[in-house]
Formats: sequence, structure tokens, C-alpha cells
Amino acid sequence: MTHKEKLSSIRSSMKEKGIDAYIIPSSDPHINEYLPDFYKCIAWVSGFTGSAGTLVITQDFAGLWTDSRYFVQANEQLANTGFELVKLKIQHAPEYVNWLADKFNTETVVAFDGNLASLAVANAINNTLLPLNFKIDGHIDLLNDIWQNRPALPTEKAYTLPITTTGQSVKDKLAAIRLVLKQKRATAHLVSSLDDVAWILNLRGSDVKCNPVTLGFLYITAQKAILFINPLKLDTETSQELNSYGVEVKEYQNVRNLIGQLSDKEIILLDPKRTCYAIYDTVPKSVKIIEDTNPSTLLKAVKNETEINHQRKAMVNDGVAMTRFFKWVEENVTSGNLTEMNIADKLQTLRAEQPDFKDISFDTIAGYKDHGALPHYKAEEHSNYKLEPKGLLLVDSGGQYETGTTDITRVITLGTPTQEEKEDYTIVLKGTIEGSMAIYTKGTRGYQIDAITRRPIWGTLRNYGHGTGHGVGFFLNVHEGPHVFNPTNVDIAIEPGMITSIEPGLYREGKHGIRIENLVLAKNLASNQFGDFMDFETLTICYIATDLIEKSLLDTIHINWLNNYNQWVYDSVAPKLTTEEAQWLREKTKAI
Amino acid sequence: MTHKEKLSSIRSSMKEKGIDAYIIPSSDPHINEYLPDFYKCIAWVSGFTGSAGTLVITQDFAGLWTDSRYFVQANEQLANTGFELVKLKIQHAPEYVNWLADKFNTETVVAFDGNLASLAVANAINNTLLPLNFKIDGHIDLLNDIWQNRPALPTEKAYTLPITTTGQSVKDKLAAIRLVLKQKRATAHLVSSLDDVAWILNLRGSDVKCNPVTLGFLYITAQKAILFINPLKLDTETSQELNSYGVEVKEYQNVRNLIGQLSDKEIILLDPKRTCYAIYDTVPKSVKIIEDTNPSTLLKAVKNETEINHQRKAMVNDGVAMTRFFKWVEENVTSGNLTEMNIADKLQTLRAEQPDFKDISFDTIAGYKDHGALPHYKAEEHSNYKLEPKGLLLVDSGGQYETGTTDITRVITLGTPTQEEKEDYTIVLKGTIEGSMAIYTKGTRGYQIDAITRRPIWGTLRNYGHGTGHGVGFFLNVHEGPHVFNPTNVDIAIEPGMITSIEPGLYREGKHGIRIENLVLAKNLASNQFGDFMDFETLTICYIATDLIEKSLLDTIHINWLNNYNQWVYDSVAPKLTTEEAQWLREKTKAI
Repeated sequence: MTHKEKLSSIRSSMKEKGIDAYIIPSSDPHINEYLPDFYKCIAWVSGFTGSAGTLVITQDFAGLWTDSRYFVQANEQLANTGFELVKLKIQHAPEYVNWLADKFNTETVVAFDGNLASLAVANAINNTLLPLNFKIDGHIDLLNDIWQNRPALPTEKAYTLPITTTGQSVKDKLAAIRLVLKQKRATAHLVSSLDDVAWILNLRGSDVKCNPVTLGFLYITAQKAILFINPLKLDTETSQELNSYGVEVKEYQNVRNLIGQLSDKEIILLDPKRTCYAIYDTVPKSVKIIEDTNPSTLLKAVKNETEINHQRKAMVNDGVAMTRFFKWVEENVTSGNLTEMNIADKLQTLRAEQPDFKDISFDTIAGYKDHGALPHYKAEEHSNYKLEPKGLLLVDSGGQYETGTTDITRVITLGTPTQEEKEDYTIVLKGTIEGSMAIYTKGTRGYQIDAITRRPIWGTLRNYGHGTGHGVGFFLNVHEGPHVFNPTNVDIAIEPGMITSIEPGLYREGKHGIRIENLVLAKNLASNQFGDFMDFETLTICYIATDLIEKSLLDTIHINWLNNYNQWVYDSVAPKLTTEEAQWLREKTKAI
Repeated sequence: MTHKEKLSSIRSSMKEKGIDAYIIPSSDPHINEYLPDFYKCIAWVSGFTGSAGTLVITQDFAGLWTDSRYFVQANEQLANTGFELVKLKIQHAPEYVNWLADKFNTETVVAFDGNLASLAVANAINNTLLPLNFKIDGHIDLLNDIWQNRPALPTEKAYTLPITTTGQSVKDKLAAIRLVLKQKRATAHLVSSLDDVAWILNLRGSDVKCNPVTLGFLYITAQKAILFINPLKLDTETSQELNSYGVEVKEYQNVRNLIGQLSDKEIILLDPKRTCYAIYDTVPKSVKIIEDTNPSTLLKAVKNETEINHQRKAMVNDGVAMTRFFKWVEENVTSGNLTEMNIADKLQTLRAEQPDFKDISFDTIAGYKDHGALPHYKAEEHSNYKLEPKGLLLVDSGGQYETGTTDITRVITLGTPTQEEKEDYTIVLKGTIEGSMAIYTKGTRGYQIDAITRRPIWGTLRNYGHGTGHGVGFFLNVHEGPHVFNPTNVDIAIEPGMITSIEPGLYREGKHGIRIENLVLAKNLASNQFGDFMDFETLTICYIATDLIEKSLLDTIHINWLNNYNQWVYDSVAPKLTTEEAQWLREKTKAI
């Protein structure tokens, strides 16, 4: 079935059912960013494989709303599908809702499948369109009947982590959550988000690509905790371990029965951003709902000392793999055998040699020359560039280690860089450095760090269309909030113990892309009469290439930061390298 | 009646009526920041005269929640009143609601007067406390029966401004608003905020101290516009002029009848931040309400070319007054006759000599030595310092000219500054300069400019407890949003034509205060492949003292900015000064 045929089938169903506009959000009942194949509806319908977007289908228009990270990719993938790219002004904003409001009049019927939409997305739709007298049905799945051979839900095994890895027991985590529930006067709580379920139960799995999570819902009350999961996923020992923490195990599908039969006396806390509309709408109308962030989301974001120490060690191992990788690229680029795809494989192989390696944390972005200008590029057979001894190579990659999650971007030059390449690189580096050096008061929000990082880049009339940074989990999701460093008004204070990326970039379409990304740990710095001050400890350990630097664009503070950083990288990684590798790294980390 | 007696009377009424907690917000039915005397409830009850705060009274506690600008003032004014200061962590946040939630249990009765609370404040109370089964009554005025000789509502005359001043006719403004109402599918709109009423009708008055507004409500539909106002305020000509624009005039009190009798078919747009809860609750339940920012608030914030050109000229005149003022202070400080209060009077006299002067735009803050550390200090008889030839003097002041509103803060030294004073001054100046020099993309929010301004100050482990800047009206309110530069997540993009202050500060309790404030105009700068870039034009024209600068703390870019600025001040102001005054200014504006 071609994409056009699928679109045509959907339009026929819409006509039959009297639906004027059908919305397909990019999510699932767990509001995953990376979806199990079963829920890859947008890719199946339109061919677009980016991780963020929304399809809206009407009889005379079919569009994909996505953000600037995906403009080039979407343009390519949507060719001849019947879908057009609609460029989002603001990442993740439900701008298609206003488009519907402007295009249609009252009585218009808008439908979507509540399993694919968070409550927040459904609220955005309802709050804008209901006052205009649109009719909205959030329980319409038009795909299931059309989708032949739809993949099944995954059944991979789940496993628990020891407290020596996690630093906090399941009992303690449940107690901390129950305390928050009590403060908020909630008597019940349903956790749909898989990273939260994994963190609370010290449980990991492999149901979602690159994310070590397992499909399940966790229901928590003052007395009880019930994990709804496919029983095939747990062996007897794991079930017994969970039972020993007071966690019952029930069949995955039964969660809807439980939620549908809640007693009138319950006050249930649901996270509107991490709960799907279908679940929300299953709650009996007589039950009070408190809409609030999952308590575990905030608790999980603040890493404990055990996690931080593991993470620091994982960074050294990741740095060893990265060093070997760049050395190997440099030494083999003249062979003519390197491609974007096979270097990504090589990097995965080098990471896999490191202790505690489990998986990569996302699909490696190896973008050579103009492919580097696509921030979320993934090389495929038809696009796969051969590397030559010239031009810039951008590599954004990360590992899932049982002792931490990594995410790093570096750019190297495979030949003699142009002045424009050097200036672009140096300006971006200045952003990375100023973000990393930021000193800020307790209570500072991520949007303030975003501005501090962008300032030196804006000052040269340059900018990048993505956020400056995202929260990162501990052996969990590589994108894991609630904290982010981006321009949107996310009202989450940076807390000591939070890990976030700092990754400004610059993308010259048709030429090259630059992004320099480290993970940083927020820490207390000092307190005085003016307040409590915090700063960042850089966690990522991999040299930053100096042969791309236009030194005249840097101030002394930037040069000092860079030289100290590269020296620290050498000191941290060299002991794990061969003499030859260490010598190579010594050259790369020489002070400028 | 002492404050303690008032508190005791209120507590008795609470007991009689079964009220556990009584909230007194700092507002009125027009959600004014500066209140007519009739609505100065907090000052009357507790003695606290700051412009922001909330009283919460229970049987065993009475507190004033206010922000760090007012901590010292509140501590002084609340002494022996029975009220205690509760320090807000975040300016304007309704933190007392969580305090109530934590302190009390279900069934608690909380009451307030809906005339004193915006809908947004009432929503914050209701949304937090109703789910906890508190009982809330938003229609309880406990003060009126106790308040002997309560001042009457003002009856000052209102007057219209010519289009040569405003740059846009009332008809055009109403048409622009009606277009927005149509887009939002609203059939009706009530404007309660006086700055909006004044802007839409090109009407000014003097009902609120320092704000050239007149008390009235404006009701707008596709066909009609009705101004609800005390008829004594309008002479026949003004009424006729308004009629000629299609604006009917009706008695002030009648607005409630009209709102209470809206037909079921109406969809009314109300601004939750600029409409009081009492009005909101008057709308029949069958009428649909769209809660959104007043269209005029956004339109008004973007100044037109006529306004901008007037404003630039008003700044020159304001700069002449400021120059004469500082020269006079410098030449007379040794006399021993200058005090915080009489220099404020002198400044007002000098401003009043300038063309188009109407009033000051807020009470002058002349804070000498440690009084400068109180960001909203107003000298009174008991606190009035005599000036001596030593120490720092902070002067924050502004004028209402018929051709613009000004707001400026400068700090000068009356003797030889200490190293600490110089360092503090220079670091704050660096913040002012970096904020003023910021280049940013279209869509940037005020919180990002806040961070850019704070960065060099944070970097030295210093900070200030207030916002970086506020929107300013055109011959209207000196605090006029919706745009602000502060750390809160206010989701308003900076648009070309917006005028905002940049005013970082530093306050050493018991020593000195520093704040260097200019008004800036947001402008388009350049567009390229990376986006549309904007910057600021500094509007304020008054020399920045250089004898307080520790030059080693500034980079070349800061020094260049400062020298260019002072040269521009000289060039702009000198032609309007006497030769002697110009010579004095020449010295003050010499390059460093």
C-alpha cells in the first residue's frame, strides 16, 4: 500500500464517519518519544520517520506539522505521499489547532485516537476548538482496520538493577512518592510513562529502541502498588523481588478496568503530559483528578551520589570509545572505504567493548558535509556519503551503560577547513563554553541558560533552530525531563543533581553543520547575601578539536576553559589507552 | 483606629461569618497597580504602602506576602501592627495559597472580596483549594463596615489626545480590536484595565496617582462601544467627540447590569489578568467566556512611529531636567541643606519646566547611602537623610509628558567612592550594557533578555531580587505590559516597537544600592538564513557617571558602548543647555 493509498483510505473512512479533520499525534499510551513499532503510525501513514510531528488530514489537505530539526528530512520523506510539510514556529507547539480554528467553522468534526495523544495535547485541542463549537471525538482509531500486518507489542524480558547501581531502593522511592501524594491530597496515582515506571521499580527492559524501558503501567496508593505488565516479561525471580517491595503484578490490559472502576472517594493524580487521553477519559466522572507532574519525574531528575559517581565513570569509558573512534576515522579516511553508515557501526562496536555497555542511547547521527546541516540526520542506503579527506564531519551519538547514559556531539575536519567553517565552529564553541561556564542563582530556569548559551551566537547574527539542551536519564531515556534548556517557558527550576546537555549548533544548508555537545551536572557553588549560586560540572569526556578554531574570535576566558577541558580529558582517558593512542590524544589536547 | 484594632475587628467579623482565612489582595476592579485611595485596603489595614503584596488573616496569624523589593520597608511598616512579613520567593506568585493548603484541612472557609482580585488570582485560589475541599467565597468585603471616612472614588476630569500625539485614531483602534474579536470568535469584550481604556479612546485623566488614566469600563461589540464612566468626568465636547467615534457614554455603575444581563448567545472575551473576579462572576453562567489577553494590551505595547518620535523628543527634555538636577545636587551638597525629600521636589520642579510635562510617572526614589539598598524606597519625614559630600546617591524617577513616559535610574557618588562601591557599580553597569547590546531573534521572550543582563552579574556571585525590566506605556502607565524582562515564564515575544526598561541592580543592606536604568526600544536589525534578528535602541538620554567605574572590570566592548552613549547624551542634550551647563556635562561625558 503506498502512502497515497493509505491517505485515500483514511479519507474514505473519514467521509463514512462524518469526520472533517483527523489528527494523528506522534505518541502512544505511555507518551513515549521513541515508539514501539506498533505505534509508529505517522511513519506508516506518511513515511516520515522523525521523532516529533503531527499529521492532520482533511479532504483537501494533508499536512505534517514538525519543527526545524526535521524540515529537510520531512521534505524528502514526504515527496509524493500526498502530505505536505507545515513548518512549526515553536517546537512541539500544537500550532495545527489554530490552523483548524482558522480554516473551519463551527460544527466541524475533529477526531483523533486518544491512545496517541497526551492529555495535554487533547486539552490543547479541546480548549481551543470546543469554545468555537467544533465537535471533537478523541476515541477514533482509523488506522487499525487499514493497517495490514501491524507489528505486535514487544515482549522483551525486563530485569531489575541492584541498589549498588541505583543508589535508592524501590521501597524508598515508593515512600518518597507516597509522601508527595499525601501532600497533594491524592489517594491514587497512575504512572504511564515508562521512564518513571523503570526508575521507581529499578527495572529495565528493551521494549523501546535505545531506551532501556519495559511496557507497563504502575498504579500507586498509600497501601498498594500494582505493576500492569505482560507477564511474559518477568521471570519468577523478578516477580518475587517486586512482590518483596510490596508491588503486585497484574496483566497489562487490566489497567483500564482498574481505572474505569475507581471509587468516588479516590482523588487520582495524573500527569497531563505523561498520560494519554484515552486513559484519562476512562476515569469515572465522579472521581477527582489532580493534574500535576508525576512526582517520580521530579525525583528522578535529581541524580543521587551513587548515580552521579557511576555516570562519571561511564563518561571515562565513553571517552575511550570516542577517542579510538576519531583516531580510527582520521587514520582510515584516505582509504576511501569509510561511509556515514559504516563509521556509525564502528562507533557502536567501540562502545560495545566498554564495560557495562548495553546499547546505544539513540541512532547515531554521522553527518558528513551538508548532511551535518540536518540536525537529526540518519544515514540510509540512498543517502550514505563516502568520507573523503576534506570537509566537516558531525557525529552525535551516545551509549546506554548499566552505569549511565551518554550523549555527545563533536565535529572534526577531515581536511583543511575553510575560514567560514572555522568561524562557524568557533562561534558555536563559544556558546558551548559560555553555557558550561554559566553561574546562576537557585531557581534559575532552563530558558535562562538557553539565552546565555545563545548570546555569543546571536551576537554574530547566527542561530540554531533547536533547543540548547535536554535532560538526560541515568541508564534511562536520553531525552528525559522535566528540565530542558530551550527558549520555551518551561517552568522548572534547575536543581543540583540534574544532568542536561548543552549543545548549541549552526547549520548552513547545503554546506555543513556544527554542534558541540557536552552533558553537564548542575551543582551548588556558593551562598552569600545575594543568594545561593550554582554552576555546572561538565561530565562528558572527549577532546574538542582545536584545528577548527579561529582563535581571534575567542576571549581569554574561552581559551582557558578549552585548554583546561582538553587537559582534563587527556588526564582522564589516557590511562585507559594504549601508548600510541595516548600519544595521539596528547596531540589533540595540546593547549592553543 | 490602630492597625491592631483593625485586625481585631476583621477577626471578629471573620468569627461571626465563619471565615477561617481572609485574603486581601492589592488590587481594585480595574486591576490597577497604583490604586485610587478608595481601594488602598492593605495600607489602611496594615500600614504597608508598597505597590505589591497580599494580606492573609487567620485567627492565629496575620501576614503580608510581598517580594524582596519591599522586605526592608515591610519590616519597618509592619512593626507593632499584628502583621508579619512573609517573604515571597517569586514576585507576584500566589504563594499564600500553598501556605493555606498546607496549614488548613478540608472544609476550611476562605474568603476574599472579588473586587480586589483579578480573575487570575481567584483562579489560583480556587484551582488549588477547591480540589482540597476548601469552601471559598469570593464576595466578602469585611472592610467597608469598619472603614470610617473611607475616601470617595475620584472625579477628576478626563480629556482626549489629538491624533498628532497618538498616531492612531479611536476608530482605527476599535477596528483593530474588532478584528481580533472576530478572529477569536468573540461577540463581546469588556475592558476593565484603565490603561487599555485610555489607549483605545485616546483618553487621559488623573484618577490614579502618576498614571494619566480615568476610571471607566469599556464594552465593545462588533457594532457598539460603550464607555461606563462617572458623567462628571466628561465635558460636553469630550462626550460628543467620543460619540463621533461611535462610543456611547453610560453611568459607571451600570456596567454590572449590562454584564449580568448578557444574552446566552454572547461569547465574551475577558482578560483574566485585567478583569476582577467580581465582574467575571457577574457574567451569566450560560454565556461563554473566552479568557485571553485584552487585544488592546498587545496592540498598545507596540508603539507606532508617531509615538516613538514623540518619545525620543520627550527623552531629550527629560535628559535636560536630569542634567540640571545632578549639576544642582553636586554644587549644593556641601551646603548641608539637601535631603532625600527636597532633592526629589527639586527634580520634579526641573521636570515641570520642560515642555508637555504633566506629572511625575511614579514617586521619586531618592535613596542615599543605605537607603539606596531599598529598591522601592520613598523618603518620608522620619527617614529623610541629609546629603553629605560622601557616599552613593541612587535616584530612580520619571516623568509623564503628553508626548511620552520616562523612567530612569542613575547612581552618583557625592564623595570619593570605596573600592567596593566602584566594583558594585561597574558590575551592574556591565549588566545594563550587555542587556542593551543584546542581539536576539524574533520570538525571543523577556526572560531571555533577563538572563543575558544578569549573566555578568551572576558571574561575580552577585544578584538582584527584582526583575530586569518592565514595559512602559506612551504617556500612560510606567509599568505597562504585557512584556517584561524578568525570570518568570511570561510567554510574550518581544516585538519591534515595544519599550522596556533595563535596570539591573545591586543592594548591600546597610551600605548602598545601585541600579542603572535606561528605557530601550526593540527594533528589527537584520534577516538572514539563520533568522530575523532584533536589537535595542536606547531611548533614555542622561549621562552615566564614570567616576564610579573600575575600568579593569570592563571589556573593550563595554567601554566603547559607554563612551558612545555618553557622547550621544552630550550631543543630544547640550543644545538645550546653557553654556555653563553644557561645559559641566562635557566633563561628565568625557570618554574613559
